[in-house]
Amino acid sequence: MTAGPGGSGLRAGLRIGIVGGGQLGRMLALSAYPLGLRCRFLDPSPECPAGQVGELVVGAYDDPAALDRFADGVDVVTFEFENVPASALARLESRTAVWPPARALETGQDRLREKELFAASGIETAAFEAIETLDDTVRAFDAMGGPGIIKTRRLGYDGKGQARINEAGQIAAAWPGLERASGGGGLIIERVVKFDSEVSIIATRGRDGSMAIYPPTENVHQHEPAAGGGILRRSLAPAPGISDEQVRLAGEAISRVMEGLGYVGTMAIEFFRVPDGRGGHRLVANETAPRVHNSGHWTMDGCGCSQFENHMRAVAGLPLGSPRAAGCSVMLNIVSTMPDVRALCRIDGLRIHLYGKEARPGRKLGHATLVGSSFDEIRDRLAAAERLIYPAG
Amino acid sequence: MTAGPGGSGLRAGLRIGIVGGGQLGRMLALSAYPLGLRCRFLDPSPECPAGQVGELVVGAYDDPAALDRFADGVDVVTFEFENVPASALARLESRTAVWPPARALETGQDRLREKELFAASGIETAAFEAIETLDDTVRAFDAMGGPGIIKTRRLGYDGKGQARINEAGQIAAAWPGLERASGGGGLIIERVVKFDSEVSIIATRGRDGSMAIYPPTENVHQHEPAAGGGILRRSLAPAPGISDEQVRLAGEAISRVMEGLGYVGTMAIEFFRVPDGRGGHRLVANETAPRVHNSGHWTMDGCGCSQFENHMRAVAGLPLGSPRAAGCSVMLNIVSTMPDVRALCRIDGLRIHLYGKEARPGRKLGHATLVGSSFDEIRDRLAAAERLIYPAG
Repeated sequence: MTAGPGGSGLRAGLRIGIVGGGQLGRMLALSAYPLGLRCRFLDPSPECPAGQVGELVVGAYDDPAALDRFADGVDVVTFEFENVPASALARLESRTAVWPPARALETGQDRLREKELFAASGIETAAFEAIETLDDTVRAFDAMGGPGIIKTRRLGYDGKGQARINEAGQIAAAWPGLERASGGGGLIIERVVKFDSEVSIIATRGRDGSMAIYPPTENVHQHEPAAGGGILRRSLAPAPGISDEQVRLAGEAISRVMEGLGYVGTMAIEFFRVPDGRGGHRLVANETAPRVHNSGHWTMDGCGCSQFENHMRAVAGLPLGSPRAAGCSVMLNIVSTMPDVRALCRIDGLRIHLYGKEARPGRKLGHATLVGSSFDEIRDRLAAAERLIYPAG
Repeated sequence: MTAGPGGSGLRAGLRIGIVGGGQLGRMLALSAYPLGLRCRFLDPSPECPAGQVGELVVGAYDDPAALDRFADGVDVVTFEFENVPASALARLESRTAVWPPARALETGQDRLREKELFAASGIETAAFEAIETLDDTVRAFDAMGGPGIIKTRRLGYDGKGQARINEAGQIAAAWPGLERASGGGGLIIERVVKFDSEVSIIATRGRDGSMAIYPPTENVHQHEPAAGGGILRRSLAPAPGISDEQVRLAGEAISRVMEGLGYVGTMAIEFFRVPDGRGGHRLVANETAPRVHNSGHWTMDGCGCSQFENHMRAVAGLPLGSPRAAGCSVMLNIVSTMPDVRALCRIDGLRIHLYGKEARPGRKLGHATLVGSSFDEIRDRLAAAERLIYPAG
């Protein structure tokens, strides 16, 4: 019945390598340590947030020597972000197990492949088309018959490298900047979708194919000039006003995508909630993230087992924990300016998560979560937290 | 209204030095990181559990060079254990702020001073007497009129350095071993107390004198030969069957003790629940721990703000979080043998906390906690966890 180290239980000190030492890597490690897992990070910056909480290899993501130092003695490698160079992925895969699989990262890096994956999985998206030249783009825009957004296929992040086009005449002016932002990686144009709200669904898939699907989250983004676009400001979970049928459909959608990719770990899909013309809504997929996702940060305080812990359970080959919500959660992102932490500490039940970063415009510095039996129950404390975190409203 | 780093909020990257890199230090750091605090440990072992999760200075606790390296650049020093040499305390205090105060550690190191503190605070204890010679002891034992326990004044831990004496004739045989175990630090004899259960109370006191008092916990100890005595096996919180009056009295007792010591941080007092002869019980203080305590590990999963986080808030000068229990919690210690972690992961809602240690007889390797709306609700899952953690019953 008993299992010593190396027995039927987890091998003592299984070591997980995490590519990227930002806040996501940091929170992955903090959720992995209580499982007895060890963590090592690879990041170009010796000052990265994760370096404060674990072993850090400082090096560029495409530096073979750094990759080898990082992978040496690590049992499995995972990622806090999707923009890992293909050469680095190949080198890591030649030395150790890598989860999620390279294919998932390559898809997550590329808006075109991502849209094609949605289509292949039977998931509705906005109309889209790959574009190569200015002429292409004008033709594609005219064919779509309404406002569009041109996006770089790769390296898009929080709205960077995007331009909204309301009429064809705007394309020529935007084109040089976009082409430059794309770095030769290509562009796509998408039809603008009119939506009532944005929701995301997050799930973890284990090595054995088991799924932990979190309740959908409603997300409110805010334009942040310093971040070059929209940045997540607030998440509510479970997303209010979503029908059981939509919850089921979103869960089926992410399950199909993850199965199709042979995915292991945590993934997010962002949807627009679009009026269906009959008084209801349908979900239109926007993009995926092959990693833990900002819209799932509430799961640390509002669920039996967080998206971070489940990601680490999955890549370590452990059974997944429950994604059940304990109540109603609201997460507020702390961006650009550090609020008065003393005052935040005084808000009853507010769970504070700071990332160990210096404040800088457009930078995500932390988040804070309230969990209650209903959204109504936490309303006053939420308002107090918002006054501190977003003093300008 | 806004507060940048160094404004009315917490200074970015306030660094806390933690003397001791065992599991308590590790859990202190894991609870401090989300507040944006940085941690550095001092421990003689490069393999200590905390070294996996933060910056570690390897050195003896009485090595001046190691103490200086540890204290250099640290904003405040705290402790995961009370047996810090007085010379080390003095050296640290000359270089940086130290919380809890040296006086509290000195009292917690010494069973005699601890008993005297209880008496001075109006808190009932078992009859006790300091003893210096075999003759002293026989006389003291006879005067107590019943079974006693001889204990070293210092360095007692989980029942080490203790002998139970049922009749005076046993004293001579036990004496040489106890005198050796005392290392010249003195001995005391205490009257054995007949109790129905053991409860502890844990509280945190802020720098401003504010108090966060956790609900009392019922603790079940088990004899562990490899640990040389009793070791905590299970905690239930809030302690079942404790009257509101006793909760109030225990809270007042710990408040008086902490105020008397000018305490800052988390402290525990262990009590015996002794039949009062009128069908009720009274609380008889056994000992204090001037640190976070094993019987408060449930607060990580069962409270708004854990004993660890509140300790770090206190020493960092932040407002304390709520000690309110979210429901009924049961914590199981994992001792000596590592259970099947995969199987533990499958128990719905079980929160697992492993310390990153190799298994060894008598060693605390981790703990696991279940939280439910009632003890009854978690009974079946608790039984499943106990079968895995204590296969021998």
